[in-house]
Amino acid sequence: MANPLFREREVDFQLYEVVQADRLCALPAFADHSRETFDLYLQATRRLAREALFPAYRAMDEASARFENGRIFVHPKMKSLYPQMVALGLLTATRPPEVGGQSLPMTVAALASATLMAANLSAYGYIGLTAGAAHLLETFGDAQLKRDLMEPMYSGAWTGTMALTEPGAGSSLSDVKTTARKTDKGHHLLRGAKIFISGGDHDFAENIVHMVLARGTDAPPGTKGVSLFAVPKMRRENGKLVPNDVTVTGMIHKIGWRGIPSLALGFGDRDDCHGWLVGQPHRGLAHMFQMMNEARIMIGMNGVATATVAYQESLAYASTRPQGRPLGAKDPTTPQVPIIAHADVRRMLLRQKAIVEGGLSLLLCTSRYADLAVHAVEAGERRRAALLLDLLTPMAKTFPAERGFESNALAVQIHGGYGYSTEYLPEAWLRDQKLNSIHEGTTGIQGLDLLGRKVVAEGGAPLRLLRDEIAHAAARADAAGVDPTWGARVLGAMDAAAALTMELAASGMGGDPEAMLLHSADYMDLLSTVVVGWQWLLQAAAAKEGRATTEGDADFYSGKLCAAQYWIHTELPRVALLAELCRSREDAYARMQPSWF
Amino acid sequence: MANPLFREREVDFQLYEVVQADRLCALPAFADHSRETFDLYLQATRRLAREALFPAYRAMDEASARFENGRIFVHPKMKSLYPQMVALGLLTATRPPEVGGQSLPMTVAALASATLMAANLSAYGYIGLTAGAAHLLETFGDAQLKRDLMEPMYSGAWTGTMALTEPGAGSSLSDVKTTARKTDKGHHLLRGAKIFISGGDHDFAENIVHMVLARGTDAPPGTKGVSLFAVPKMRRENGKLVPNDVTVTGMIHKIGWRGIPSLALGFGDRDDCHGWLVGQPHRGLAHMFQMMNEARIMIGMNGVATATVAYQESLAYASTRPQGRPLGAKDPTTPQVPIIAHADVRRMLLRQKAIVEGGLSLLLCTSRYADLAVHAVEAGERRRAALLLDLLTPMAKTFPAERGFESNALAVQIHGGYGYSTEYLPEAWLRDQKLNSIHEGTTGIQGLDLLGRKVVAEGGAPLRLLRDEIAHAAARADAAGVDPTWGARVLGAMDAAAALTMELAASGMGGDPEAMLLHSADYMDLLSTVVVGWQWLLQAAAAKEGRATTEGDADFYSGKLCAAQYWIHTELPRVALLAELCRSREDAYARMQPSWF
Repeated sequence: MANPLFREREVDFQLYEVVQADRLCALPAFADHSRETFDLYLQATRRLAREALFPAYRAMDEASARFENGRIFVHPKMKSLYPQMVALGLLTATRPPEVGGQSLPMTVAALASATLMAANLSAYGYIGLTAGAAHLLETFGDAQLKRDLMEPMYSGAWTGTMALTEPGAGSSLSDVKTTARKTDKGHHLLRGAKIFISGGDHDFAENIVHMVLARGTDAPPGTKGVSLFAVPKMRRENGKLVPNDVTVTGMIHKIGWRGIPSLALGFGDRDDCHGWLVGQPHRGLAHMFQMMNEARIMIGMNGVATATVAYQESLAYASTRPQGRPLGAKDPTTPQVPIIAHADVRRMLLRQKAIVEGGLSLLLCTSRYADLAVHAVEAGERRRAALLLDLLTPMAKTFPAERGFESNALAVQIHGGYGYSTEYLPEAWLRDQKLNSIHEGTTGIQGLDLLGRKVVAEGGAPLRLLRDEIAHAAARADAAGVDPTWGARVLGAMDAAAALTMELAASGMGGDPEAMLLHSADYMDLLSTVVVGWQWLLQAAAAKEGRATTEGDADFYSGKLCAAQYWIHTELPRVALLAELCRSREDAYARMQPSWF
Repeated sequence: MANPLFREREVDFQLYEVVQADRLCALPAFADHSRETFDLYLQATRRLAREALFPAYRAMDEASARFENGRIFVHPKMKSLYPQMVALGLLTATRPPEVGGQSLPMTVAALASATLMAANLSAYGYIGLTAGAAHLLETFGDAQLKRDLMEPMYSGAWTGTMALTEPGAGSSLSDVKTTARKTDKGHHLLRGAKIFISGGDHDFAENIVHMVLARGTDAPPGTKGVSLFAVPKMRRENGKLVPNDVTVTGMIHKIGWRGIPSLALGFGDRDDCHGWLVGQPHRGLAHMFQMMNEARIMIGMNGVATATVAYQESLAYASTRPQGRPLGAKDPTTPQVPIIAHADVRRMLLRQKAIVEGGLSLLLCTSRYADLAVHAVEAGERRRAALLLDLLTPMAKTFPAERGFESNALAVQIHGGYGYSTEYLPEAWLRDQKLNSIHEGTTGIQGLDLLGRKVVAEGGAPLRLLRDEIAHAAARADAAGVDPTWGARVLGAMDAAAALTMELAASGMGGDPEAMLLHSADYMDLLSTVVVGWQWLLQAAAAKEGRATTEGDADFYSGKLCAAQYWIHTELPRVALLAELCRSREDAYARMQPSWF
């Protein structure tokens, strides 16, 4: 039986029973939608994922792009896959009709995308990057940029990239050295080098628009001098596309995501690279963060999807691979049992389930706030949703990357020696997953962002809102008949997190930000564990509600309740320990000198 | 600067200051040795590791074995590397002079081997397997087997394998189906299929001796019917080597350890496969466990070595890669700092250090008990050491595999985007490491062995002995001036583990082994954390002692004390949490039904 990627029952549960996405249709922005239109979109993407993208996955992993004579040749499958994805409307799913979009809630679009990512994350990657780049132009570009660049991207004729990173300044964007010299013809001349540009070249569409961070020649140093430019690979001259002095200077041999190349690009080697300013000068980083924040949620969903497809694979394997006998069954003439009969194999499967379904729920919840932040009717509710979105984004990006990697390793482990071979798929997903803790802001950077900025924004308002949401969930769970200690445990963990945050923030405001942020990695782990506990509480509530009303789904709901129990009893207790560690300011790595290693 | 693999200072510290291997020379078995002879051996192996094995590592990873026309062709480098390793005396390092050995303590030989593993674990793998297989013949074989098979293996002319696993019975050795039919000519005729046979064929030596588990045609079912046979690839007939009906039927495409092929072998397809019984009939599994236990310690050392070489690589990278500025340093015109200046990077490095050096210490300590179990003068001390060896073996195998994988992932993470590419080495070591939780008994099986057999042996004697050892270490640490709370914390954690074990054992003896073993994975984590805490306490004691007497090593010792602090303050507190979890018998995965997933 083929891997189902995301199962229909799980999608329905998460979307309609947990996050209740159909209620979004009450908002004017989504008034044309209904559960029926959502389901049509989900069915179409699921079919493409299962029938076209997933069958191409291994081939694209095995034969990655070639770099020959300055050009990149990607797997030939992309020539048919990309238009098929475009035809589904993926590029503009959440955009309004004015740009050809369907005005779908991000909550729904994200889940549809997740299915495509689970099938073939590289193939979907081109869509995600193109949609994000075009959306930047939609938001900040002038009418000419929209017509000349955004439209061919949204139409699927061209693709897009984000080009931030430079060889000498990986995560440190204040050190961007690419320059942009203003001309009197409306464009700038760019010169510089970028690295790790995903989809920075390929051969399946006629043009690529790079969203490039560069520094005006008159700009101040640091992040304040960085502007955003749209730089096409080919520019239009006299009605024809001509090369725009963007060259591929190298290809990084990635260990995963092998269907989408990661490239080093040179801009302006012949001083003939035209770029067009997008938005305000010196506001490039702020503008770019629209795409970055979308990308972080997309990466989180990639993490969920990559862990999910591996979970499904190991579940199927464990259910059918016979080996060994139950404890105490000594008779070697009896048949062997499927390995799912062994408690430790069930432990590994349940741990995966808790991570991947808890992660999915977190991503959908975050996406829902993204919808409400833009489309809620009341300004106060938009503001509230925006704060929660900002708070959750670093965790939505990091939890699936870090715990997803653990989950992917368990899928390999369950496959035993076979899992350690390229004859089986879990090893490929393990490789794929590792990138998610690195790109779009490493886990370390997400931790600093969460503790140093997000939780302390507006005097701590985001955490208070989160506490309200968790209290809501606990009330829903209680009403549904969930064991009342579960809600109390999650709320208790949230309160512990809030108290810790106050202490840490006080020390930061007291002038010691190093001490405040020393355990930002542990803090990230802590708050993510609480937040996923909240998600499991919601799922438990929905499962109890469903069991009371739906016939024939008892097994599904029992599994949900079991996984919720697992998270709340096995993982949530780590919160107190982590809080103690953060509070103690255990200083081993603060004191550790480079020469001591 | 080339990766040092294991640094000289670390080797000296671990061997002479922590485990005090030179004191073993007081035993009659090692009377001919001294620190000088140990050091000569260590220097010779280190030189070979750095100058020959490590430079060949990447090439062997990239061009793994080829399977053509029924034959295996390994990387041509092996033709020179194998004789060079043999020339150092690796095959018989710990064996007595009667078989050409050097009678080195395993403690010393293990550390020398670790350096070779860090350099090129596949190349060393052939040595480890050959030494183990020949040792089986030395222990259980008759004079003819020793002369005909063991001698050419020990001499380096032939290699050896262990052939246990079958396609239908991975970890379930009671389901071995390979048969051995007795003839009246002294040999048996074998027939069956084995899989995952490392080094099962190659082209750099003239013959290979497989140590095969098979079932006599008259044997009872289950493990009790399994015997051990020596089955050479080529057998001697009329003074010539002729094929012995052992065929390569397939090659598994492993994701790591790519210098040593993992093969499917067929025995007796033409009913002409001669095998010779080794030891007692029906005692095959018991005999094999000599090699298995040695192999488990070797795998643990592989885990330590693979994490160590990656740790060294990421340490060098972090010390030289400039990126970003300290928190609060806002001036973008100041130079960037090496990333080791960032606290979260130091956290990742210190975590690696704590895992790899704590793991090394555990492996050397375990090896020392292996030495004492055989060579201590008093029978009581031999017995005591044997119990501790048995107790520690599952943890010595599992801790480096599981936590080493985490450590290897951190080495990738520190390298950022570059770490995600095959242009850098950490990704290769990450792949290599993953096998160690799978082969020679999965982590799940080690957990069942530890809790179900090892800690409850002889009425709990092993844990009492371990408690004594930890009390000793605490006394040594106190005397050396280590913070007395550290010893108290480790002893407290040990007492918590002992109390938990009593409770679990009581429930097992009360007739509920399923409940007893439900949290065997958590128990493994728990006791390993205590045991590594013990090792860090010993290292802290040795560091304080060293600092009091040695000039100029203050940095080295400060690093040791910092890492000890890190483990004791950051990891050891997990013990109480894990004990609570095991005691609670949290039953989510006990209850979880296959249909609920």
